[in-house]
Order: sequence, then C-alpha cells, then structure tokens
Amino acid sequence: KKSRHSTLNHLSFEGVWPLPQAFTSSTERYPLNPQAFYFGYGKQSAAQQGCSVLDTAFKRYFSLIFPDYSSVDQWAFVDKPFLVEVSVDQDDCESYPQEDSSEKYNLSVCEGKASLKAETVWGAVRGLETFSQMVYQDDFGSYFVNKTEIEDFPRFQFRGILLDTSRHYLPVQAILKTLDAMAYSKFNVFHWHIVDDPSFPYQSSTFPDLSSKGAFHPMTHIYTQSDVRRVISYARLQGIRVLPEFDSPGHTKSWGKGQSDLLTPCYRGSTPSGTFGPVNPVLPSTYQFMEKLFKEVSSVFPDSYIHLGGDEVNFSCWKSNPDVRAFMQKMGFGADFTKLEAFYIENIVNITSALNKTSIVWQDVFDYHEKIPEDTVLHIWKGLPEVYQTELSRITKAGKRVLLAAPWYINHISYGQDWRNYYTVQPQNFSGTEEQKKLVIGGEVCMWGEYVDATNLNPRLWPRASAAAERLWSDEKQTSSVDSAFPRLQDFRCKLVRRGIQAEPLYVGHCKHEYQGV
Amino acid sequence: KKSRHSTLNHLSFEGVWPLPQAFTSSTERYPLNPQAFYFGYGKQSAAQQGCSVLDTAFKRYFSLIFPDYSSVDQWAFVDKPFLVEVSVDQDDCESYPQEDSSEKYNLSVCEGKASLKAETVWGAVRGLETFSQMVYQDDFGSYFVNKTEIEDFPRFQFRGILLDTSRHYLPVQAILKTLDAMAYSKFNVFHWHIVDDPSFPYQSSTFPDLSSKGAFHPMTHIYTQSDVRRVISYARLQGIRVLPEFDSPGHTKSWGKGQSDLLTPCYRGSTPSGTFGPVNPVLPSTYQFMEKLFKEVSSVFPDSYIHLGGDEVNFSCWKSNPDVRAFMQKMGFGADFTKLEAFYIENIVNITSALNKTSIVWQDVFDYHEKIPEDTVLHIWKGLPEVYQTELSRITKAGKRVLLAAPWYINHISYGQDWRNYYTVQPQNFSGTEEQKKLVIGGEVCMWGEYVDATNLNPRLWPRASAAAERLWSDEKQTSSVDSAFPRLQDFRCKLVRRGIQAEPLYVGHCKHEYQGV
Repeated sequence: KKSRHSTLNHLSFEGVWPLPQAFTSSTERYPLNPQAFYFGYGKQSAAQQGCSVLDTAFKRYFSLIFPDYSSVDQWAFVDKPFLVEVSVDQDDCESYPQEDSSEKYNLSVCEGKASLKAETVWGAVRGLETFSQMVYQDDFGSYFVNKTEIEDFPRFQFRGILLDTSRHYLPVQAILKTLDAMAYSKFNVFHWHIVDDPSFPYQSSTFPDLSSKGAFHPMTHIYTQSDVRRVISYARLQGIRVLPEFDSPGHTKSWGKGQSDLLTPCYRGSTPSGTFGPVNPVLPSTYQFMEKLFKEVSSVFPDSYIHLGGDEVNFSCWKSNPDVRAFMQKMGFGADFTKLEAFYIENIVNITSALNKTSIVWQDVFDYHEKIPEDTVLHIWKGLPEVYQTELSRITKAGKRVLLAAPWYINHISYGQDWRNYYTVQPQNFSGTEEQKKLVIGGEVCMWGEYVDATNLNPRLWPRASAAAERLWSDEKQTSSVDSAFPRLQDFRCKLVRRGIQAEPLYVGHCKHEYQGV
Repeated sequence: KKSRHSTLNHLSFEGVWPLPQAFTSSTERYPLNPQAFYFGYGKQSAAQQGCSVLDTAFKRYFSLIFPDYSSVDQWAFVDKPFLVEVSVDQDDCESYPQEDSSEKYNLSVCEGKASLKAETVWGAVRGLETFSQMVYQDDFGSYFVNKTEIEDFPRFQFRGILLDTSRHYLPVQAILKTLDAMAYSKFNVFHWHIVDDPSFPYQSSTFPDLSSKGAFHPMTHIYTQSDVRRVISYARLQGIRVLPEFDSPGHTKSWGKGQSDLLTPCYRGSTPSGTFGPVNPVLPSTYQFMEKLFKEVSSVFPDSYIHLGGDEVNFSCWKSNPDVRAFMQKMGFGADFTKLEAFYIENIVNITSALNKTSIVWQDVFDYHEKIPEDTVLHIWKGLPEVYQTELSRITKAGKRVLLAAPWYINHISYGQDWRNYYTVQPQNFSGTEEQKKLVIGGEVCMWGEYVDATNLNPRLWPRASAAAERLWSDEKQTSSVDSAFPRLQDFRCKLVRRGIQAEPLYVGHCKHEYQGV
C-alpha cells in the first residue's frame, strides 16, 4: 500500500485512464482544500458563467474530486486557495457535441492553479475528467494534486457504447448511470439500439401503437418523449452524442404488432402461414411509414448521424411470398434477394439523407451492395481478427468510412481477464494505405441484451469497456503493454467503485473504498 | 402475459422454487387483504409468541408477501381476514439449526386460513418461504393465494453456498443480503471460506495480529467478533448454518504475516530463500497455535461442523526445507510427502474432534490418506462428471460421507444459459450400493473470489445458484426436465428481483417489476 501511494505521488498521470497523449509530471504536490477550491472561467474564454455545459461540469466534478468532503470540512488544512481556470475558444455551451467536435485540451497544474484550455466545451469536459482523476488523498485523507503538464486529444473521433433496450428494458436511471461512467472513460457516443425483435419501447408521437402494442408493457416498459429528451440532454452535458438505431428491415418483429402491413407475410405454399418476416420492401406504404417515422426520429435526436441497422436479413420469408417474388421479377432482380435488400436500404438511406442525416449501417449492407452513398459509415461486427481485418481492408478500399465493433462484443463473457483481449485490439492493423487507415473513424463496445438488464449491466460493462476506451483514446505505442496497463486499470476500477459505479474486480485484491451499495 | 397469469392462477405451486415434494392445487383462489392478514401460533404448537425465529419470520414474510402494501392500504378490499397458523412440535426457537434438523413441513391453504405444520421452527421457516411464493397479484394489484396442499421436505440435508472473503473482502451487508437470497432458494448452509492466501479478515481475539497484519486493511477489511456474531445470528433466524473454513496447511500465506514461525521457510539450496510455503508441520508450536485458534473458532461458531480445508498442498517448499526432510526421515515417511500432509491433517482433525466438532475436508485429504476419522465428511471439488462420479464411488465405498461441489463452481462463468448445467447434475448417479448413495449428504455451490466482490456477487450468484438449489431440495424425477424448469426459474428470478436481489436475467424478456436499485 505504501509503495502504491508513493508511486501515485510521483507519477500522478498514471492515475489517469485513458492515458493522455503527452504529459510531464513531477513529485511536487499541492494540497487542495475543498473549502478553498474554485472553478472559474478564464478572462479570454469564449464561454463564461451561465454556460450550461461547464457550470454543471464544475458542480459535478467538485463532488467527484472531493468524495468525502462532508467529513473533511472540520479538519485543519493549509488555507491556500486553488483555482481551476477553464478557457475555451468557442462558445458552444448550448450546442450538441458532433462528429467533428474537438475534444483536445491542455492542462497545466502548478502552485495554486490549474489552467485548462480547450477549443470547445467538450474538450474542457474531457480535461476536467482528467484533472479529477489526478487528485488523490494521502493516508490522512488530505487531498493533493501534483505539478503536471498535459496535452491531450483522442486518437479516434468515435468512441461508442451500444446498449440494447429491446431484448431487455433498461430503466432510464440505468442509462443515465451508464452515461456517467462513459464520461469517466472518455467515451463520446451512446449508440442506443432502442428497438428490435423482442420489444419496441420507443414511444413514437406519430405512431403511438408501436410501443403501446410492441413494448413489453405499454406504460412501465417504454421510453416517453420526455425520457428520451432527458437521456439526450444528460448525455450532452457530458459531451456524449446519442446515436439512435432503428434497425430494419430485419430485427423488426415488435414493429409489426403496432403497425399492420409493415412486415412481410410469410407463406407456407400458396397460403399465408400467419407468421411475419422482415419489413415488406414491395409496398409503397412501407416507405411512407418509414418517412414519417424517420422524420420524427430525426427531429427528436439532434445528432447528425442515424443508425439504420440492415443486419441479418433472413430471405426465406421474402422468398415464400408471391408478391415479393413478383416484385423481384418486375425489378429484374432475378433470384438475388441481396438486390432486394439493397433496394430497400437505398430507399431508407435516401429518406434519412433528405432529412440531413448521415447514415451508419451494419457491414451486411456493404457486403450486399457496394453502391451506397459516399458518406455512409459501415459498422463492422463480424468475426475474429483475420475476418474483420479483411473487411476493414475491403470497405476502406472502397473509400467508405468504417466503425469497428467486432472485437468489442463484451456481452460475450468468459472466465478470467478477458479485458486483455479488448485492450490489445489494433483497429488500424489491416492491409491498406495510410488514406485507408484514416477511414477508421473509431470503435464501439457492444452490450447486446440477450442476457443483460439493469441487474447485471454495470458489472459486465465496467471496467471491461474501459479497456477499449483507452485503445480508442490513447496513443497505441504508449499503451502497447497490457501488463503495464493492468495496475493502472485496477486503480481506475477502484475510482469507478468510489464513484458508485458497480465495476467488477479484475483479479484478487481490494480497493481502499469497497462498493457499498449492496 | 394473460396466459402466463392464468397459468399461475391455475397452478400456484408452479410459482414455488424449489419445487415441493408433493402438492395438490386448485383454481379456487382466496383474496388476501394486507389489513386483515395475520400470522399466529397454533394452540398445540410447542413454540408460541416470543419465539425469536418465528416472530421475526412473521414480520419478514409479511413484507415479502405484500411488497407494495403501503400503496395498497387505501384500496377497497374484501374484508375477509386470513390467518396463517403455524404449529411446531419442538420448541427449538432459541437453538441453532443443525445437520439433523428436520426441515419438513405441511402446508394447507383453504378459505380464510393456511395451516403450516412442522417438526421444528426450521421446517416452519421453509414453509413460510413456500407460502410467500404462492401469493400473487392480479392485474389490479390485489393479492391472492390458491387452495393448496403441500407436503414438503428436502432431498438432501446439506445445501450450501460458499463465499470466499479472502480473495476479495465482502462487506457484512453483502453477506447478509446473500443469506436473505439463500433462504428464498431454501439453502441451509453458508460455508464461509473466511481466510486464504490473499488476506486474513477474521479478527481473532486470541491472535489479533492475524488480521491486523494479514487483512487487506486492519480496520476496514476485517470481520470483528461482533460482525461474525451478527452473520451467525442473522443466518440462524433464516434457518441457515454457518460453516467456517480455516483452510490449512496450504492456502495460508496471509496467516504468516501475523504469526511468525507458522509457515515453512522455503530453501534455495542450503539457505532460506525468504519465501514461505504451507504451514510448518514439523514444529510443536504449530499445533499449539492451531489448538488455540480452533478452540476460539469452535466457540465463536456454534455449528457442530468445521471445515479444515486440506486442499492443494504444494510439496516443493517442504521438500526444500532441511528440517522438514529430517522430520520425514525420523517419522519413516521416506520421500512420500503425502504422508506428511496426512500426518498434519490427522493432528488438526484430532484437535477439532477434541473440541466436539465434526470435520469437513476437501477430497485431497482422502486421496492422500484413507484412514481419517469415521465421521469426517469429504468435499469433492475436482473435475468433470466422469471424474467426480468416480470419486463419489471411491469415497462412499470407503464408508465416508461426501459433499458434492465439483459441478457447482459457479464462479466459472460462460456466455448463455449455463444454469442448465447446474440443474441437470445427478448427485447420486455413480456406481455404488444404495447404502453408498445415502452417504451423499448434499451439495454446495462455490463462488470463489478471484474475480468476485460485492460489485458482481449478486448477479453472478442469482439465479444460477437457484438451479442447484432445486436439484438439492426437490425430487429428481419431478424435476428432470430442464425445459419445464426454465419458465418456472424465470418467474422465480423475477420474484428475486422484486425482493431487491440483483438476480440476472436468464434470457430475453422482462419482469413486471424490473430492478430499480440502479
């Protein structure tokens, strides 16, 4: 324990996860008195008091920096004030973080003062997170921070976590808690896989039957418009984008309950079997419905991206349906149902393009159909390294941007330290030019919901997702050793626990402050 | 949903996990009004008001039966009183549950009254659990119970859960919560693997240095005498025995920190290497220490059983030590270190026998040494079915009683429905006579702590351990189908969630009341 502490004293940046890009640190340390600790705006800062993002961040981080302040306030302290002065170049206080928002920041800690400079408020929020992780307590409970210089920025612009609220419903509170923990690991995209086969919890104002008939329960297992706004605004304050996914034409069983004629009737021989397949791609009403739905979704979710799914379309029902077959003939698709799938997706992408949204689709769409709009992002989810590396090559060779999820399906659990596998992923290790490598916009950790709900979400996500977070934020060369990462991740995991996140242990040992929420 | 409910209405025993041995049930249902619902003692009952076990059980089960009573009390209800009348043959209210305590009970539910009869208060507690699971709410929130007759008793007398508080410290609160959940699945033994290599959290009054030097932290990561008493008395009220394990001579690294000369100094060539091995079996001081320690432990833990460990002894350190080698020679053990291990265990068993405790040891002890006291229980932890079945045969053939843990190492996790494996275990399926089969006293679910602490304990334990619970309580023939168990276990899991246990989902779906403790 003693040696651990002195290590932290000497190298305070070691306590920061994900590792900053560049830092110098010294053993010189400054005591922090919670009674004389202030956040403030620099004189030149484009954002000033009243800035919603930073005002709330100051409040939030004060509590995170001084977790047991209430028990401290009667102690005797050196009465030196300490100011964290934040300056940003842009007044983007009331905007939403976007794909091209800078998250770069510089942080300089010296006697009595920390200067945090960033281009945007989102960069400032990342810097506050870093600062909060640098503060530590000695054995007497006094707070300290070491003299430090940090220049930091993310390696990838897209660092996401997918939650699946269809296979199990997640209470809004569980989503908000996840957003908190995401900010601690500097994740910046919450990919909300909000509906799927088992349930449709999104309460649409245009089509209320979708949730009243398609949710597990029409009142207790839905996300109202107000719930969705709450999630989006909570995420915004942490610099997190909310990327909604309305996956089609497959994965839509629950849609059919509240919207008749949307799904393809499957046939047994010459009669309908009573079961339904993917969305029916041959009816004009389908596209009219989708246009209305996506118009609503586009206005509810402010992000300029939308996820359209497009994965795992089973063709057997389409094949069985005489109307679908007739349409295939008319369109000259022959017996190639991938053409029908491509036709469908093209229509949907056109709808969302007209709504000024950039589309993300699962890799299946590329595999079927190379001619998709230039700016569409392909999302790779299949296979082991050899498999996804080939896909990375192929897609980027076609000039398309790509997002990597395949190695981070962390709903798959196994005994032991599987975080090591998530840490050692090399997202740009595939055969291709430098230009191709730049088309990798980032990565995503997926927590599919077959076996996950609010009872086990947190210990399964944390700190396993944090391993991916460092891969996506930090310099690969500086973070190539999984063994040096281990004690750092252990420290970080204890910080998560201290902050009330039910992050599971990596191995035998203990935290100074164990989880108390039992 | 509708059909699910009507199923429950028709077959209310289906809602009971583990499945009772014999039951008849009808569709006749009786409304229960929380305002007019009483527990009482039968006139002939040996226990009457003032009985600590039943008085507290009545209070506990009232809250479990009417979880949202506070929101109900203004509703209009049929004002028929309902009495649960409990009668027991023995006044064992202030005793501790023991290995031979009867847990048998009869429960008869009819208009206005449920009669619960048992030989002991422990049987009555099991019956109250069953009754609490039979009560359900209709869609309007009204409570009902169906006309039912149940005769129930456990298949095995020993149904345990092991928690490991050495590899990670578990706050007392986490242990108490586990005891609650154990009672819901009718587990009756908490095997407290309290110390091991990584830490020694048990605060001994005789040897306080063991925890002050051997715990992760001498104040925050220990179990005081008062903590231990609290666990034991909390467990007692639920009819759960507390079986302490002080594993030796291996797994004792943490002991060495607070007790010098206890562990064997390992040698490199002719000089001590500075590292230590298992307990030193050649020094008389070792046995003097153990005698004092076990004297204390025997008086602190009232159960008549004690677990002595004896597993995984590494001989390399003993081999390296010249004093140990000289002792081997003197004793005529040759180069057979299993004889030394047997010699050591024999001494320890003699110590605990003199303290009137029956010993349980891990199977390793039998593998080394067939001549152990008659009543010692062997605990099987190794291998796949073929392996542990052979061990079951061998040990029972030698006339020894046996406890099966091998198939229930549920700290090992994997993706998907691994509870199916825990459910389909057949503890008496090995080659042997009927007499041999009777020597299987029960089974134990082990949650070793390498990767488990209070952050992930509950979702890893529940409902996976409940699968084993039904195997250990219920009739094997009536519970042979894992597929029929599935919806029942799903229902039971939702009950656990409703009771505040963070039990993870078994598959896609939902509970009427989702986990709210995020």
